[in-house]
Amino acid sequence: MPEFIREENVSLSKAAQTGRYSAIRKASVDICKPLSHEDHVVQPAAFVSPPKWHLAHSTWFFEHFILSKNKKGYKAFNESYNYLFNSYYDSAGSRVLRTDRGNITRPGVEEILQYRAYVDEQVGTLLETGVPEEAAAFIELGLHHEQQHQELLYTDIKYILGHNPLFPQYHAPALRAETPVRPAAFIDMNEGIYGIGYDGDGFCFDNEKGRHKVFLHAFRFMDRLITNGEYLGFMEDGGYDNALLWLAEGWDWVKQNRAASPLYWYKIDNNWYNYSLSGLLKVNESAPVTHVSYYEADAFARWKGKRLLTEFEWEAACSARYREIPSHSNFADKRALSTSAAHEGDDQLLGNAWEWTSSAYLPYPYYKQATGALGEYNGKFMVNQMVLRGGSCVTPRDHMRITYRNFFHPDERWQFTGIRLAESIV
Amino acid sequence: MPEFIREENVSLSKAAQTGRYSAIRKASVDICKPLSHEDHVVQPAAFVSPPKWHLAHSTWFFEHFILSKNKKGYKAFNESYNYLFNSYYDSAGSRVLRTDRGNITRPGVEEILQYRAYVDEQVGTLLETGVPEEAAAFIELGLHHEQQHQELLYTDIKYILGHNPLFPQYHAPALRAETPVRPAAFIDMNEGIYGIGYDGDGFCFDNEKGRHKVFLHAFRFMDRLITNGEYLGFMEDGGYDNALLWLAEGWDWVKQNRAASPLYWYKIDNNWYNYSLSGLLKVNESAPVTHVSYYEADAFARWKGKRLLTEFEWEAACSARYREIPSHSNFADKRALSTSAAHEGDDQLLGNAWEWTSSAYLPYPYYKQATGALGEYNGKFMVNQMVLRGGSCVTPRDHMRITYRNFFHPDERWQFTGIRLAESIV
Amino acid sequence: MPEFIREENVSLSKAAQTGRYSAIRKASVDICKPLSHEDHVVQPAAFVSPPKWHLAHSTWFFEHFILSKNKKGYKAFNESYNYLFNSYYDSAGSRVLRTDRGNITRPGVEEILQYRAYVDEQVGTLLETGVPEEAAAFIELGLHHEQQHQELLYTDIKYILGHNPLFPQYHAPALRAETPVRPAAFIDMNEGIYGIGYDGDGFCFDNEKGRHKVFLHAFRFMDRLITNGEYLGFMEDGGYDNALLWLAEGWDWVKQNRAASPLYWYKIDNNWYNYSLSGLLKVNESAPVTHVSYYEADAFARWKGKRLLTEFEWEAACSARYREIPSHSNFADKRALSTSAAHEGDDQLLGNAWEWTSSAYLPYPYYKQATGALGEYNGKFMVNQMVLRGGSCVTPRDHMRITYRNFFHPDERWQFTGIRLAESIV
Amino acid sequence: MPEFIREENVSLSKAAQTGRYSAIRKASVDICKPLSHEDHVVQPAAFVSPPKWHLAHSTWFFEHFILSKNKKGYKAFNESYNYLFNSYYDSAGSRVLRTDRGNITRPGVEEILQYRAYVDEQVGTLLETGVPEEAAAFIELGLHHEQQHQELLYTDIKYILGHNPLFPQYHAPALRAETPVRPAAFIDMNEGIYGIGYDGDGFCFDNEKGRHKVFLHAFRFMDRLITNGEYLGFMEDGGYDNALLWLAEGWDWVKQNRAASPLYWYKIDNNWYNYSLSGLLKVNESAPVTHVSYYEADAFARWKGKRLLTEFEWEAACSARYREIPSHSNFADKRALSTSAAHEGDDQLLGNAWEWTSSAYLPYPYYKQATGALGEYNGKFMVNQMVLRGGSCVTPRDHMRITYRNFFHPDERWQFTGIRLAESIV
Repeated sequence: MPEFIREENVSLSKAAQTGRYSAIRKASVDICKPLSHEDHVVQPAAFVSPPKWHLAHSTWFFEHFILSKNKKGYKAFNESYNYLFNSYYDSAGSRVLRTDRGNITRPGVEEILQYRAYVDEQVGTLLETGVPEEAAAFIELGLHHEQQHQELLYTDIKYILGHNPLFPQYHAPALRAETPVRPAAFIDMNEGIYGIGYDGDGFCFDNEKGRHKVFLHAFRFMDRLITNGEYLGFMEDGGYDNALLWLAEGWDWVKQNRAASPLYWYKIDNNWYNYSLSGLLKVNESAPVTHVSYYEADAFARWKGKRLLTEFEWEAACSARYREIPSHSNFADKRALSTSAAHEGDDQLLGNAWEWTSSAYLPYPYYKQATGALGEYNGKFMVNQMVLRGGSCVTPRDHMRITYRNFFHPDERWQFTGIRLAESIV
Repeated sequence: MPEFIREENVSLSKAAQTGRYSAIRKASVDICKPLSHEDHVVQPAAFVSPPKWHLAHSTWFFEHFILSKNKKGYKAFNESYNYLFNSYYDSAGSRVLRTDRGNITRPGVEEILQYRAYVDEQVGTLLETGVPEEAAAFIELGLHHEQQHQELLYTDIKYILGHNPLFPQYHAPALRAETPVRPAAFIDMNEGIYGIGYDGDGFCFDNEKGRHKVFLHAFRFMDRLITNGEYLGFMEDGGYDNALLWLAEGWDWVKQNRAASPLYWYKIDNNWYNYSLSGLLKVNESAPVTHVSYYEADAFARWKGKRLLTEFEWEAACSARYREIPSHSNFADKRALSTSAAHEGDDQLLGNAWEWTSSAYLPYPYYKQATGALGEYNGKFMVNQMVLRGGSCVTPRDHMRITYRNFFHPDERWQFTGIRLAESIV
Repeated sequence: MPEFIREENVSLSKAAQTGRYSAIRKASVDICKPLSHEDHVVQPAAFVSPPKWHLAHSTWFFEHFILSKNKKGYKAFNESYNYLFNSYYDSAGSRVLRTDRGNITRPGVEEILQYRAYVDEQVGTLLETGVPEEAAAFIELGLHHEQQHQELLYTDIKYILGHNPLFPQYHAPALRAETPVRPAAFIDMNEGIYGIGYDGDGFCFDNEKGRHKVFLHAFRFMDRLITNGEYLGFMEDGGYDNALLWLAEGWDWVKQNRAASPLYWYKIDNNWYNYSLSGLLKVNESAPVTHVSYYEADAFARWKGKRLLTEFEWEAACSARYREIPSHSNFADKRALSTSAAHEGDDQLLGNAWEWTSSAYLPYPYYKQATGALGEYNGKFMVNQMVLRGGSCVTPRDHMRITYRNFFHPDERWQFTGIRLAESIV
Repeated sequence: MPEFIREENVSLSKAAQTGRYSAIRKASVDICKPLSHEDHVVQPAAFVSPPKWHLAHSTWFFEHFILSKNKKGYKAFNESYNYLFNSYYDSAGSRVLRTDRGNITRPGVEEILQYRAYVDEQVGTLLETGVPEEAAAFIELGLHHEQQHQELLYTDIKYILGHNPLFPQYHAPALRAETPVRPAAFIDMNEGIYGIGYDGDGFCFDNEKGRHKVFLHAFRFMDRLITNGEYLGFMEDGGYDNALLWLAEGWDWVKQNRAASPLYWYKIDNNWYNYSLSGLLKVNESAPVTHVSYYEADAFARWKGKRLLTEFEWEAACSARYREIPSHSNFADKRALSTSAAHEGDDQLLGNAWEWTSSAYLPYPYYKQATGALGEYNGKFMVNQMVLRGGSCVTPRDHMRITYRNFFHPDERWQFTGIRLAESIV
């Protein structure tokens, strides 16, 4: 999920009350509360952004797209921030150094928090006086954008702390009753024509739009996610050493990265541990496996003689079972911030882990590129990435939709990515 | 198209007559006739193989999969060839050097031709005495494999000679009557359920198997390929300088490669030339553009306000118009070895240029991985590549099928790859 | 200069009084006073270390080589620091992540300062009770090591702040009376045998040892450093565009880095500015040029029809003029932290800028590799680097010696490196 | 040794008789006689040039520097060759493809031989009619240039054939009487002032000029080269696994290249073989080790508690023993093309293997850069390379001088590079 969003027309709606704005904006700051100033600034991998940058960039969005356009005489907090925190600024003047986000130590955390307060106050007064329709749509958009960055804050913080040899805790471990996971079963779906894509009147991203039909042949899917224990079975059976189980590029990836386990797993004195936001803990074999690449998900499925779902099968299956997000789903509001074992009645379609599908990220038939500033980003990521569905334990619950399409490159695994098996019914 | 094929059960058939075997095998040697010994040996890019290697590897296929298994007491021509010309040999013993195909000067061309003669004679006597059913299937497979390498021979030879500053001719230029291309029109297709995949009783690759249904919304497609002249319009309109027209990874590709034209194009004294197998010639504005990457095809379509076809739309459209390959199609047997302008009644769906579709290369719903030696390669390329359809001016005509799925990475363009526009009917 | 030092036997001496220890240790902390916590943590280039790391590593030196070996029952401040701040620890156990210094956000600055206080207190009590001779030598060594890191702190801080587009000030600019530089003259040296290397009874590094003779032919050298203004002449004469002026590898470096000025120079509205520790200021044409690579120094000399000094010529010349460091020299104690124009009587041989010599960094004839822990580092850097002489405006004055040999790769220029011309007398 | 030479004024001389010209030119062609056409064309590593290129480039030298300047109305054999075979042509016009030498299959070997014949005939008539003095100097230069390429032909052919898994023979193995090597002794040299550099009236390269004095402290050197057997001792003692024996960059090189033996060595069934121009043979433990990098030479010396000679010590020692090349030296004229064991009275200072010295390649005090076309290349390689002395078993005997300075980067080892130990006398 790139840091910038890709919307078009925002279905307006009542949205945009001051309360909702404040709550969502506050949530980002709250996520960073356990961090030191030092934690805010680094970028240990190109795909990670410093927490400070997330806090600033999501604020810049409101400053740039709402305040500077809708508030007469708006005075920028700091003119240079437009350059520093604009994710897509592309030109390079003579004063501009090419630099990495992770090397910019100033402005510091305190200045960024002041920047947030300044912008929030200005947006607050704008909301009070009433905003034009287009601006309201941008505010709605800005809040969804903010929530995307909240998920990224969690995953980037996990990456930063999880690559420190001291393995610091982000938050205290939840009490983990080691409930054994229930056995899995497969659920059948009939062949037929299914509707795909968003057609409600709330907010959605443009890549979900253009409700359309797909024909699906009969298939069945597993009624929960694959667990760490099941994935250990793959590892212990030599899964990472058997070229025949892997896509060719997956096998290259294994060798180049010497991959032998999911990300964050460490074998210590013959026991497997994995780093969680509560520190380095013994692997919970009942919880869904996360932090696997598409290559690993695909290899695991091949090892099992199964396959992954397409995104269309996934959406058809999920829509058949739910009209809205079920309350038992494990999203960020539960504050578990790690996956939990499936109990009776929990199919884990929503929450816990983003499920790799076997669908490449491509436009729907009626997809239309937006015009204007946001149009630049609409379809530009639709190549070489795979679709993931269902949200994870660090996704804000009210950010999720059954039609939501997330997407990453097949080698990426620092998000909470997991596996669900399926097969065609012959 | 990887050098190795990906089949499963070969639908047996009458195949395998000595005559057909000889003809196809001879064609490979004939393609190399205009080459010097020196031309046979180099590998100017990782994706190119030396002509000598193609000649040897396709021979090794028959030696390894047919002779060594079906001919009692078969004596290999040279034991070391099994190592040198086996494309997928993966292990590394203490005697084995990691090396590039393009650095192996020996065995030389003469030895390879002797190797071919030796194997052909042995297969000939095998065919005369009659072969078991499974072996017949492998021979059929070997011939299709040979034909895949014939196309690669043409494109690799073009790459080798086309990157020599002297721009040598491979064959004499055909007389080119510069017929102006006819204006293009769009052809409508109704929405509905269409059948996709091979269901005949001839040969096909396993990725075409599992005939199944897809639902297509109404669309229309251009009744010929995009020409060089039309593509020049894109170039002259600043297409390569406008980030908004490109996929993000496409834009990175443009900048990294300083791409500003299709491959093989050179601007000399303000005129555009492109290298063809007949040398460096003025660009023929009426002929279909070739040697464009997926990124370029996609950017061109966006510039035109259109899109590419999906592979399903393409197959539905082509199946609706043809039951078999039409005789007017420009395939390798025409010996033009370059694209030709569309005349009245020529939709160019087959021949001339492989058409980039907007479909990622993924398994069909009932796709099944083969077992045994060939099974290693069946689905392993199904990630990060795009499907191309329709064959090109260097594809052997009797190798083509309407259901044929070719595939390349989005940045590859040394094949004869072209563009056809489409749009959804709203 | 690698972060670790390369000593052998320390010539004992009176050293090691508590006062001197405290003063040198305090100086490191003082250098970091103007920094924010965020400034302490990043590593914008592989050759830069985070200030926090310098503070911790130089402390670890005393903990590891003195306290743990000479203080009974010494309890480490934190066992894991031995791993985190040991610059040459080479093994990798199963718990250890490969990571960059610049990604380790914890321990934070406060913990590191506590670490320093803890170790300093312990060393203090050790000094009071008296230390064995070997330990005294190691303390002496540790203090010189600390001073090497003080210089690196300045240059790394400059790199961190100077690559922030906001160009923050480290300290207030000194009042700069723009004294015009005096004209340069050349000083003759006679041919003869000269003594090279340290032979005093104070401290020196092992690479200075083994006093020996060299024969020098007659030469002359410029009586001050090359100024920014003179270097601008080279730039304006197309120095960076003229391949004939450069070493072949220098020319590659120019093209690969698009080098067109010293590091930290920016052209804004047709004026040249350079970043200093006092922010971005107009280039002072009278001050010595700094932040040039060996390639630039060599090209400049060729442009002038001159050459650089060898390190032997430099030492012979400097020894002929000075027995000890002259008080007018611009070292770190002057707190200018940038170069200053040469006035009457100031030959700038010491201070201001490290002078690139034309001598490769190689062992002296009687060089001997130390044994034990320190021995690992003695001669291991003696390839592919060039010797620099004389110290810079950020070198601690009492760290310098006329026989001091500094060394960097020819492409490195984030130190205060400068140019002095010479020629053979024919 | 870069492919182009670095001379200045050629000390004229009687030189340039037709006979000598023909003999030297013919020798290059003779070296290539055992090659197939395919062998002539490839470039398996960036530092290797195709044999065909050597044959053409050395011819181009005469065409460009002699014929085109001294022969009225000279008609180039082929205008495009000036571009193809000019090693230092730097510009890039719109028609020019960036390409590798190893991908240029045309002109083929036959055309290149015709090119040689054409140029040789033209030079022949020029020689008959008499040439101006400057042209005579260039012819002399061209012949030395040709001889440099003769050595490179041998080493590049060895690299090409030696990286073919079939290990083809270049020429029949000499009968190898496995003479045991005699025990080594050390020879003392007194301290004093020695003269360095060429001062005869024959030909030499400009880097040897400027006869000057150096002071050398007393030292001793081994009276023969290190053998394969002695080097095996280093290997068997874990030399490649012991970081303490290596320069830091050498150790990086070991790990990055997984170096565990000299180039061309292979362990088969527990025996060591090395590839020679006579194929893969058991390692001859009495012959001097070759194909070691500077890093390996330096590590070996450290393992032995010794060091390498400086180039000054080497020249002083060699000059003290020889006035001219002794007849027993193993140079290319002996046609052994591999090293041979030292017999009584053979110190191996000349021939057999280029000896890595501990001296970086730097200008002599009176070194002067030439002007004009050749001046571009004079000193441009004088950084990051080490000097080698003495010539090898594939150096043309009459190309060698005691003052000859060869130079390579410390990681290069495809030349016949060897080791001689030394130490200071304390």
